[in-house]
Amino acid sequence: MMEGIGFIAAALTSTAFFPQAIKVIKSRQVVDISLAMYVTFVIGLISWIIYGFARHLLSIFICNIITLIPASIILIIKIRAILNAKRMSSEKFMNHP
Amino acid sequence: MMEGIGFIAAALTSTAFFPQAIKVIKSRQVVDISLAMYVTFVIGLISWIIYGFARHLLSIFICNIITLIPASIILIIKIRAILNAKRMSSEKFMNHP
Repeated sequence: MMEGIGFIAAALTSTAFFPQAIKVIKSRQVVDISLAMYVTFVIGLISWIIYGFARHLLSIFICNIITLIPASIILIIKIRAILNAKRMSSEKFMNHP
Repeated sequence: MMEGIGFIAAALTSTAFFPQAIKVIKSRQVVDISLAMYVTFVIGLISWIIYGFARHLLSIFICNIITLIPASIILIIKIRAILNAKRMSSEKFMNHP
């Protein structure tokens, strides 16, 4: 019974980021997405993966690799959007000397 | 050494949602936030809390309660925004019979 709830918990928290990644891939809109959240979260996931690997904790290793896929996609799209916005604002500035 | 990485991992993934919650509380803009992600994630966190409580796993219990605070705030603001948008669109419809 309790192992079932643990399994459901792991499945839900590991896969939750996929709908957010799909939404962001489709819309390319990330204004409301927090850069600080995804930087912190991705570093946290990588730390969990290192920990799971070193301690031979297969479930921690695999669950965090699954979550890392959508989380890093969201982070990359967010960073690109910030860089694009900066580039566009500097081009705008150059066009208006 | 490895326990240190595990501690850092837990601290980062547990607290990552706070900057997103602060951003959403300040801006009230949640268009880019995925409802499916936060519904899935909050149910997952509650499952982890039940699992941690039943198995007397204090770190799992506490870490997931910490994460539940910002995640549920984001979910509530997202649901409110959807309900407000629905109400406004139905009022608009009633004003144009």
